[in-house]
Amino acid sequence: MKARKTVEELDPYVPGRSKEEIAQEFGVKKEDILKLGSNENPWGPSKKTEEAIKKAIFEMNRYPESNLEELKKELADYSNVEPNQVIIGGDGADELIDVLAKTFIEPGDEFIVPLPSYMYYEFVFKPYGAVPHYASWNVEDNEVNIDSVIDSINEKTKMIFLCTPNNPTGGLIKEEQLRKVLDATKDSNILVVIDEAYFEYAEVTNVHLLKEYDNIFIIRTMSKVMGLAGMRVGYCISSPEIIEYMHRVKPVFSLTKLSYVAALTTIKDRDFIKESTEKGIESREYLYQEIDKMKSVHVYPSKSNYMLIDIHNTGFTAKELTEEFMKKGVIVRDCTSFKGLDEYYIRISICTLEEDKRFIEIMKEILNE
Amino acid sequence: MKARKTVEELDPYVPGRSKEEIAQEFGVKKEDILKLGSNENPWGPSKKTEEAIKKAIFEMNRYPESNLEELKKELADYSNVEPNQVIIGGDGADELIDVLAKTFIEPGDEFIVPLPSYMYYEFVFKPYGAVPHYASWNVEDNEVNIDSVIDSINEKTKMIFLCTPNNPTGGLIKEEQLRKVLDATKDSNILVVIDEAYFEYAEVTNVHLLKEYDNIFIIRTMSKVMGLAGMRVGYCISSPEIIEYMHRVKPVFSLTKLSYVAALTTIKDRDFIKESTEKGIESREYLYQEIDKMKSVHVYPSKSNYMLIDIHNTGFTAKELTEEFMKKGVIVRDCTSFKGLDEYYIRISICTLEEDKRFIEIMKEILNE
Repeated sequence: MKARKTVEELDPYVPGRSKEEIAQEFGVKKEDILKLGSNENPWGPSKKTEEAIKKAIFEMNRYPESNLEELKKELADYSNVEPNQVIIGGDGADELIDVLAKTFIEPGDEFIVPLPSYMYYEFVFKPYGAVPHYASWNVEDNEVNIDSVIDSINEKTKMIFLCTPNNPTGGLIKEEQLRKVLDATKDSNILVVIDEAYFEYAEVTNVHLLKEYDNIFIIRTMSKVMGLAGMRVGYCISSPEIIEYMHRVKPVFSLTKLSYVAALTTIKDRDFIKESTEKGIESREYLYQEIDKMKSVHVYPSKSNYMLIDIHNTGFTAKELTEEFMKKGVIVRDCTSFKGLDEYYIRISICTLEEDKRFIEIMKEILNE
Repeated sequence: MKARKTVEELDPYVPGRSKEEIAQEFGVKKEDILKLGSNENPWGPSKKTEEAIKKAIFEMNRYPESNLEELKKELADYSNVEPNQVIIGGDGADELIDVLAKTFIEPGDEFIVPLPSYMYYEFVFKPYGAVPHYASWNVEDNEVNIDSVIDSINEKTKMIFLCTPNNPTGGLIKEEQLRKVLDATKDSNILVVIDEAYFEYAEVTNVHLLKEYDNIFIIRTMSKVMGLAGMRVGYCISSPEIIEYMHRVKPVFSLTKLSYVAALTTIKDRDFIKESTEKGIESREYLYQEIDKMKSVHVYPSKSNYMLIDIHNTGFTAKELTEEFMKKGVIVRDCTSFKGLDEYYIRISICTLEEDKRFIEIMKEILNE
């Protein structure tokens, strides 16, 4: 039995490493492990959400709802759009990136992404026969090279991915830069995908641009500031027409019963969201200031809940440094697999302030700072 | 922005109706509603699973594992295969049907399905450009017309879907019939997909055929006898080669943290699975015997947790009868949307014996039996 040619050519899937594996391999206790690798919210979900889940457990045997109207309404309200502009995904935003490809991509279509950026776009789009066209993100200034994006547009371009704050660099794309791309693609059949997974930490959104341009698709998630990474809930915002097309092919029951309860309770808990955001920003600023004092590394200012660190002068590769951290029970992200970065970058994400302090101590120890 | 031609031609998505909607529209209490529409396990999840979920709630903010090794091992053990023959889906088996298409389907490929059968195959496969080729299921005898399946094979055939017990008819496909199809497709590039979502209720599996044929793909789910429909966990079993290809394109984090805990705890609780199966069979036999006594309907013997009912002689269409049931707070499945059935069939699924009795009373009342 042969797979499709596109799939035959893909690299075999290499899964990430779990706390359990690292605990076993490096002889550290699972509960002592500091996780700075996955841009999560370290404070956990809202207390109200925990309570709501407990009450819903007995319903695990029943299929979830497929229409999700109430959640759609709440997410629309949170985002200042109409419910028919919202689509909800049951594997975080990742599912909706897949549905986006399934709705619009014909083999041979091109998508533009400035590198380095989130690698999952490519992972999902390639099996549909889409071809990546790389533009550039200027890492030194932590700014997109917007001309490189516009210069990459050709008659095969179907989508342009712009991640803001950009993962893994943490820089924002200015509204005037987005407008340049939108003006260049107006009245075309090109969709400008603005990934706002981390927008709360930047306190900037581009949703208002939907009133002026109808070829915008905004990606959001409940995995970050909302504290629900484990429940896999994402949502996207676009024109009602695009959202209706996507609903035709979206999986019918992908949001679990408990994920629905978690999402609905969390989105209504605005105090929790506000507090999560504030604590996240406080942690980010603390980590930045402490790392910025270190001589052997360069840390990039970030508008998100993670930051990129240049480790060229440490004597370690990212793989080696990541290993040093793991020996001490700390998971950081080796950025070697991000196209557009060499093997001398790591990414760290926020922890509680207490954990931040432990992390900084460990980092100083490893780097002899 | 235009969707792909295949998507433009799909019907707009029509979501199913929830208990909440029916409670509101028909003025019945949500907690009084009898749900016989979705082939669920009415007794709920395992108690051990409920406890395990409570302990895992605080971890909702962390990404789930991507490799799922421990669960894979347990499912392999339960199924008498090796872990590298198992793939786990985070939207029930539905996700894996999608991954199957993504791995193997090129536009123009054909798939064979005897009608009536599960309609989701078609829902998922069509957007990939696959073309259905319908064979037939003989409803009167509740048996697949295996010659119609074999006669449908041509040079474009890529997959053959055989659901056993068949949804919505409840009949089994005999091993000798499966062998006919397998012999006819041996050494071809055709995959025979055997959907065993309900195999526990039939107490028959075809997993042993994997030792003789390498073009078998078996679909399983934890949504039925395992009582986890709301947690969206499915798994499939095939050759290590096919499973490896599928892992290349499968979503990385699709199983929620709580779904993982639920699945792992449930699969280890063999007493619960055995008891669920026994109670399910008992309920099925009770419902069959009671409905078989009614003069205005014909009920088909079933090997699953649901059964098909022919209502031609009731004076109601399925839509009308479904509506009558809803007025009394009962959800049954109108089978009009199943291709291969006309508008005079409904499907009901098992409840607790107490609920079964209430249902039978209500059915008699509506049909004047």
